[in-house]
Amino acid sequence: MKIRLIVAKNIGFCFGVRRSVETVEKLLESERKVYVAGELVHNERVLNELMKKGMVLFNPHSDLPKDLKAHTVVVRAHGLPPNIVKRLEDHAGRVVDTTCPIVMDMFKTAKGLAKKHDRLYVLGDPNHPEIVALRGYVEDPIVFKDRNELEKILKMRNDNPNLKVALISQTTKDFMTFQRSLELLVKHFKCVSVNRTICDITIKREEELGELSKKSDVVMVIGSEKSSNTNKLLRIARENTKAFLVSDPHDLRRRIPEFSDGMVVSMVSGTSTPDQLVDEMIDELKKICEEVDVVWSR
Amino acid sequence: MKIRLIVAKNIGFCFGVRRSVETVEKLLESERKVYVAGELVHNERVLNELMKKGMVLFNPHSDLPKDLKAHTVVVRAHGLPPNIVKRLEDHAGRVVDTTCPIVMDMFKTAKGLAKKHDRLYVLGDPNHPEIVALRGYVEDPIVFKDRNELEKILKMRNDNPNLKVALISQTTKDFMTFQRSLELLVKHFKCVSVNRTICDITIKREEELGELSKKSDVVMVIGSEKSSNTNKLLRIARENTKAFLVSDPHDLRRRIPEFSDGMVVSMVSGTSTPDQLVDEMIDELKKICEEVDVVWSR
Repeated sequence: MKIRLIVAKNIGFCFGVRRSVETVEKLLESERKVYVAGELVHNERVLNELMKKGMVLFNPHSDLPKDLKAHTVVVRAHGLPPNIVKRLEDHAGRVVDTTCPIVMDMFKTAKGLAKKHDRLYVLGDPNHPEIVALRGYVEDPIVFKDRNELEKILKMRNDNPNLKVALISQTTKDFMTFQRSLELLVKHFKCVSVNRTICDITIKREEELGELSKKSDVVMVIGSEKSSNTNKLLRIARENTKAFLVSDPHDLRRRIPEFSDGMVVSMVSGTSTPDQLVDEMIDELKKICEEVDVVWSR
Repeated sequence: MKIRLIVAKNIGFCFGVRRSVETVEKLLESERKVYVAGELVHNERVLNELMKKGMVLFNPHSDLPKDLKAHTVVVRAHGLPPNIVKRLEDHAGRVVDTTCPIVMDMFKTAKGLAKKHDRLYVLGDPNHPEIVALRGYVEDPIVFKDRNELEKILKMRNDNPNLKVALISQTTKDFMTFQRSLELLVKHFKCVSVNRTICDITIKREEELGELSKKSDVVMVIGSEKSSNTNKLLRIARENTKAFLVSDPHDLRRRIPEFSDGMVVSMVSGTSTPDQLVDEMIDELKKICEEVDVVWSR
């Protein structure tokens, strides 16, 4: 079987995740044990490898590890509420904050907007770590996960249209949903400030995927089901063509029935997918399909 | 021939235009001659009647009438640049400013936004009196008439996406174009403040027309070709069904071939169409079609 494989230009770890992972790797070169507050990255393989080397994950919102004082704690790219960071600083040997600067910008933008406006609307998943952290910066944001939920909230609250409101987004939400939500908000409120806090890199991935999926028979999205932006990519791809999620080479094996001779397959990934896994997936695909004509978009 | 005629709930003069016209009528009761700066209303019939009674139109941007000092000048609903109002105050016996409060709000909003932002984008027709007046409040607004023009402007200017920009609209522009323009702006700029300065009354007319046009065989839009909001209504109606513009009962006569037995006809109007003309149109339609089942939406 011969297939044509188009590999997305924007694939593998994003800058923020890479920085977090590399920070932990570097610390583990000199420290026997490194604590990470929350899942460092939504990728089981990467987590397992680092845990073998001494990384220990813990939930910074509950009881802290007893030996924290003797170790370094890393704050992952998703960020934490400032009071939790403070608590870690009080109890840990050292805190290394690798909050993604784009995420940190979003927190600060949210804080500034909340001060100047009557309401802050946030497109986000209520349980996503970014939103959990955001609540440490803004007292009562109105969080909604999609346009439908926003519509319900607007109806239910029936706020005065003259209130001054602001809109931001979790950095990994999709831009189209953001735009559609803004549309609703401008319909309800006369005066809306909107800050596009969606990460440009994730927007670029979406845009590229939009193009790729139109010219592909099937799209392979490499990433974890746990990753917000990976699931988003899957949804976007499915608007144009067939698409499936694969988390590792073994997972890819199960997908053999999806392939057929002469197919054009595109490969994209979430921002928590390491480059190495991308390479392994290509190798695995070569084994499955025997002949793979690989086109690198970069 | 029998037709069913649905008359829109929101029809006839809008509040702002009615106030301007009534002001001139009232002044003409005690004054032999009343000057009006610009076309009082985009309706030839109304203008002709008032001119017979002593209203005189003049262009406040060029030479002023020589006898202005002895008379009252009315500033129409569309407003004027503040320096022109000042000039009239200096040269006329009296100035009665009937600028629509919704339009005046738009000018003040524009002024406030221009101060706080790097760029003020305005959805509007560059030659519309509102936009001419607006330029007296804001030094260099970026005026665009539709989404396509905005797209060209954004490409040409290629402004830094980190600039803080604001978006408003001429009060009579359509809301959908406003939303689509906002979409483009948010795509280009990270931080956008949007003020929905479109008149709620014109939005209600659009929304009602959207519903009416879906259930009608043909939509009659009463108004003048010169009126911005009348043309907008025509465009909106044509998205769903056949529609035509009629300016007076004589004009309606020419439309006989458009009617056929059993038809559902909707009647809407621009905000510069007097209620009296609406009544005359209904009477004329009754003459043309013999049997008209009139349904008043109000």
